[in-house]
Amino acid sequence: MVPKKTKEIHLANRPTGMPTKDDFEFIETDLPSLEENQVLLRTLYLSVDPYMRGRMQDAKSYIPPFKLHKAIAGGGIAEVVESRSDKFKQGDVVTGTLKWAEYSRVSDSKIRKIDPNGAPVTANLSILGMTGLTAYFGLLDIGKPQAGETVVVSGAAGAVGSAVGQIAKIKGARVVGIAGSEEKIAYLKNELGFDEAVNYKEESFADDLAKAVPNGVDVYFDNVGGTVTDEVFKLLNTNARIPLCGAISSYNAEGEDVGPRLQSYMIKTSALMKGFTVGIYADRFEEGSKQLAEWLQEGRLKYEETIEEGFENTPDAFLGLFKGTNLGKMLVKVADPEYAAF
Amino acid sequence: MVPKKTKEIHLANRPTGMPTKDDFEFIETDLPSLEENQVLLRTLYLSVDPYMRGRMQDAKSYIPPFKLHKAIAGGGIAEVVESRSDKFKQGDVVTGTLKWAEYSRVSDSKIRKIDPNGAPVTANLSILGMTGLTAYFGLLDIGKPQAGETVVVSGAAGAVGSAVGQIAKIKGARVVGIAGSEEKIAYLKNELGFDEAVNYKEESFADDLAKAVPNGVDVYFDNVGGTVTDEVFKLLNTNARIPLCGAISSYNAEGEDVGPRLQSYMIKTSALMKGFTVGIYADRFEEGSKQLAEWLQEGRLKYEETIEEGFENTPDAFLGLFKGTNLGKMLVKVADPEYAAF
Repeated sequence: MVPKKTKEIHLANRPTGMPTKDDFEFIETDLPSLEENQVLLRTLYLSVDPYMRGRMQDAKSYIPPFKLHKAIAGGGIAEVVESRSDKFKQGDVVTGTLKWAEYSRVSDSKIRKIDPNGAPVTANLSILGMTGLTAYFGLLDIGKPQAGETVVVSGAAGAVGSAVGQIAKIKGARVVGIAGSEEKIAYLKNELGFDEAVNYKEESFADDLAKAVPNGVDVYFDNVGGTVTDEVFKLLNTNARIPLCGAISSYNAEGEDVGPRLQSYMIKTSALMKGFTVGIYADRFEEGSKQLAEWLQEGRLKYEETIEEGFENTPDAFLGLFKGTNLGKMLVKVADPEYAAF
Repeated sequence: MVPKKTKEIHLANRPTGMPTKDDFEFIETDLPSLEENQVLLRTLYLSVDPYMRGRMQDAKSYIPPFKLHKAIAGGGIAEVVESRSDKFKQGDVVTGTLKWAEYSRVSDSKIRKIDPNGAPVTANLSILGMTGLTAYFGLLDIGKPQAGETVVVSGAAGAVGSAVGQIAKIKGARVVGIAGSEEKIAYLKNELGFDEAVNYKEESFADDLAKAVPNGVDVYFDNVGGTVTDEVFKLLNTNARIPLCGAISSYNAEGEDVGPRLQSYMIKTSALMKGFTVGIYADRFEEGSKQLAEWLQEGRLKYEETIEEGFENTPDAFLGLFKGTNLGKMLVKVADPEYAAF
């Protein structure tokens, strides 16, 4: 039975400060018949990611803002329900940028097939997807960790951070993670093999961090910014490299987010910092995906997922990112497949 | 007549905030006879530079702090008064790191001869010396300006900034300088050929800057940090490069110097920022000096000097750097040569 209507989640307001559920609206909308080269998708999983907070603002960035009263969109996995494309047939499992919707019509050029019988399908939204690639390119292309160097990663128990730490270990570095709960600290040390992990919510954080990096910091992969970063900068070594991936601590700041000016630390140490988004490495995704899949198969990379059940909980899952309720990649399971077998 | 005593300027206190004359003390001290491979120098010119403020603090950096109640030292030009070295004879003109002193004994390995009949001798402390090399390597190695790109430089009328702008022009970039007086603005536009120059002390600075860079900012050579830099960051283009040379606005901050966190701008634009000091390019100084001398000879590089007369005015000259009293390189003329001819 091909559905004629779908529920979508639209942006209701441009939030100031921390978004709330009121910034999202659930809308039922018609699904017109397919045009040539289009497919109808049933959403199976949606990825919620910190960068999406930026798209809620009406500000110039590397990616255009979400439109008010239109569907939010992000990474997702879906199955093909109906196809007017030569490239896809009913039951194919695909990934791409999908609307936050139970069903959606998309052009066949906007999605790609994934093998549901290789790695778990959700890995395509985490370790083998954009988050794994973000870790891979940011760490290796900007951070360039050498064996024996000290790599510090903030947001270490998140999807990107946990991959960063493990890749740095594969490269022979000493790895120190920064995270916000004892559960996460234990996970980093006991499950992922980080050399040290420190809790930024402890009052002793600055001292704990300094003790965890007796030889200083050669690479700082920054996902969070804010006061955590302020402390790491005090410990940079000469020629430190800083892949600047995110600043989640600032995303919900109301008005201007202020802190100590950090330039002097960078002059003293000849440090290099480069902001990036995974898109700048688009022409090397194949290389990255292949290497990540190989490490995953060899058991050298582990990953966690926090999966919220139910389309209606998508806003909650997104909001949870800013409270740190996730360990590893935060996903929403929207539906079980009906035509695909996995 | 070989002097037996000399006046030196010692660090009397480690200043908090803006240094004052009380942080310096004039001391008369003996000049023992020369040992083998030493020369006795009469100081002719001393260079005063913003980075020296950092050495007045007892803090770990790329260069050790000045010692309390010992002579301050920096770049200088001197003539050889007496020599127990095969490499130097009376009347040779030399440059190197010299004590703030009227006379000093130094090892012959610490100085190098300069040709007093080539460029004016003081050029060896400015456009052909460390400041010129700082501009050359920071701009070309980190900033990598391409023809048609927009280069913004702060502290543009200073010794480094004015060289940066002119080198960027040679490379075909559109150049916008930021400085702090109408006299400096006029100098940048009328004498040095900057495309635009804006006064950061005007209330309309943010608007003036935005108007001066209609195509955004591709390279920002930062000498000053602080609120000037905050405004430039709002105008960065994708893949902007930021050679981070100085943060003079912060050097005298009491307590923590705070401002808006700038990381988000760098993530949005995939900007690269690298702190540096000229020393990291030591193995390429010859290349840089040769190119700078060539451009100077071709009339493609101009430079200004602000020369304070008299050893006793050295602290004032240094303090003037933080008030912006200098146009171009700030120097102190300590003495006329007695043995050298130029």
